[in-house]
Amino acid sequence: MSATDGQKIAMRGAGYYSANTVGAKYVIDKVADLVVDAVARMPRLANGHPFAIADFGAADGGTSMDMMRRLVGAVRETEPHRAISITYTDLPHNDFSTLFRLSQGLLGPSTDMPLADTPALYIFGSGTSFYRQVLPDNSLSFGFSATAMHWISKRPCMIADHVQAVGASNAEREQFRTQALRDWETILLARARELRSGGRLALANFCIDEEGHYLGHTTAVDMFDCFARHWRDLLRAGRISETEYVNATFQQFYKTPQEFAAPFRDPASSVSQAGLRLEKMFTMVTPCPYAEAFRTHRNAQDFARAYVPTLRSWSETVFANALDSSRPANERSAIIDDFYNAYEADVARAPDEHRMDYVHCVTQIVKL
Amino acid sequence: MSATDGQKIAMRGAGYYSANTVGAKYVIDKVADLVVDAVARMPRLANGHPFAIADFGAADGGTSMDMMRRLVGAVRETEPHRAISITYTDLPHNDFSTLFRLSQGLLGPSTDMPLADTPALYIFGSGTSFYRQVLPDNSLSFGFSATAMHWISKRPCMIADHVQAVGASNAEREQFRTQALRDWETILLARARELRSGGRLALANFCIDEEGHYLGHTTAVDMFDCFARHWRDLLRAGRISETEYVNATFQQFYKTPQEFAAPFRDPASSVSQAGLRLEKMFTMVTPCPYAEAFRTHRNAQDFARAYVPTLRSWSETVFANALDSSRPANERSAIIDDFYNAYEADVARAPDEHRMDYVHCVTQIVKL
Repeated sequence: MSATDGQKIAMRGAGYYSANTVGAKYVIDKVADLVVDAVARMPRLANGHPFAIADFGAADGGTSMDMMRRLVGAVRETEPHRAISITYTDLPHNDFSTLFRLSQGLLGPSTDMPLADTPALYIFGSGTSFYRQVLPDNSLSFGFSATAMHWISKRPCMIADHVQAVGASNAEREQFRTQALRDWETILLARARELRSGGRLALANFCIDEEGHYLGHTTAVDMFDCFARHWRDLLRAGRISETEYVNATFQQFYKTPQEFAAPFRDPASSVSQAGLRLEKMFTMVTPCPYAEAFRTHRNAQDFARAYVPTLRSWSETVFANALDSSRPANERSAIIDDFYNAYEADVARAPDEHRMDYVHCVTQIVKL
Repeated sequence: MSATDGQKIAMRGAGYYSANTVGAKYVIDKVADLVVDAVARMPRLANGHPFAIADFGAADGGTSMDMMRRLVGAVRETEPHRAISITYTDLPHNDFSTLFRLSQGLLGPSTDMPLADTPALYIFGSGTSFYRQVLPDNSLSFGFSATAMHWISKRPCMIADHVQAVGASNAEREQFRTQALRDWETILLARARELRSGGRLALANFCIDEEGHYLGHTTAVDMFDCFARHWRDLLRAGRISETEYVNATFQQFYKTPQEFAAPFRDPASSVSQAGLRLEKMFTMVTPCPYAEAFRTHRNAQDFARAYVPTLRSWSETVFANALDSSRPANERSAIIDDFYNAYEADVARAPDEHRMDYVHCVTQIVKL
């Protein structure tokens, strides 16, 4: 993964990400049942080895904190005195300070005991990309990742007249698919080296499901089409240049369940040869919590003001980085603000049309 | 260690610390010989265990990077394929992103291969204070710490008419000493749990040496007296209040070699009972690189402009946090700027009087 590409996937800091990604937490809470069940069936470790957990692409760790409590509880139920480590991984520029503060109970009010106060639990951060090996060979008992591996390691091309592969031309989309399938193999082979025999992965990744649904595309309106349309409006209004228009390209690809499963279905694949087996796979749609809340409160303004910042939390850097770096910073901020304000006005005008349902493919993988 | 106390020991970010602490690197380079020698004599690990290294209170990791290269080289000389982990620890608010970027070669030009590109080397951060156990029991092969453990876990009192324990009243100083000795035991017992049998610590800590020398006090002029005098000038000029004057109290204590050695000299102490033994101890004075450079270039302005920012890098938060939080931010900045500007003018006027020689006590400790 190139450093410069990596830099562009920055998130906004200090808990902003977690607070605005309520939906992400819903997904993780659902996956937690699977995780706890898997842990209960795992082989007992030899003495002197910690039960090593990793969260790949953890951001500030906020959305997975409750799951980690349950996971730690499940390990301790079988082995009360087993040392446990949790390694939170993300790109180097991630806000690890917020992650450590959250785990130590130093941010915001909480009635729960801080995760970091659990006896014999050791928490680490790693700034190593999940496209590389993050942990030593045969050391990982349980790897987890949620809503992270749709970020591919590099953009094979810019998407000329859209912002995401879902709206790209066929030729563009095939380049993204090729990159994404290569990346998936790279990710799995790195995890295969890290996992102990009997160790498991539980991954909840964005996908295109069996019905063709994907993030923000479960009804007639498509969220990425909205992004593209508002970005195109800025081009037409002369606010941004043609180059800036084209450069807004999400470094993402949503695989289908078939694509997730492919390396496992071929016994001769490098992934199968490395000992990885697909134990479970299913897709799930998590209803957009903001749209659901709107069905009750029916206040279009409130909905728009809650909904668009969520989109902004993970999309802003893509648009901000598309702008010419020679523009003064305040000019860039103004363009980006106008972009999201226009989107927000759109949502306020037709609130029933907008929703960002999450569409995930959950895979549970074991290393033989 | 209380969170709020911890917050006050913040450093300025993005490589500022390393770039301005040339002296710290000199110390570590000298200690590296000791470290490499110790590693060569360490017992071979069982298969499947990484050689685990930790840097306690690592800041951005910049000053110890070359030593880490040598240490990794020394391990690989004996065991070419041994997996190695390095855990960089500091308080949660530490700039771990800069640390990861530095190790991955993403900051500044360097002709060296990035440390993180070493095969089978795994780099982690930990936001757990070194007053707690950071790593699992019996997992640590080599622990290192430089110029970090003079920060005590809490301030037992404010120092009424000075800024550091070296200039405190006897009664105040005894309170600081009691806290520091208790902290030293806490640190050692936590490390005793983490270390493998045969594992070692190499610690370079600020001290008061056999001649009564300490940081910034190796000639007639005392650096902490200078801080205190300039702070008192602000009180006399009515710029700061009496409370603000008193609140500027470094949460630090410099122990003597005897105090460092005491827990090891008593076979009944909890530290001795935990299996720790003091193998080596010596003090060393590292000449202030800025003062040494001045002896050649003789440009007083240049010296003052290089020297005072170094002091500022580790002292600023103490003075900034002493100011009443109800003051507007720009007013606080102006006071702090004036404070260091006055110090700088002082240095420029009498450059031969100022130098911040480092005075360290180096200890090498083994766990039986």
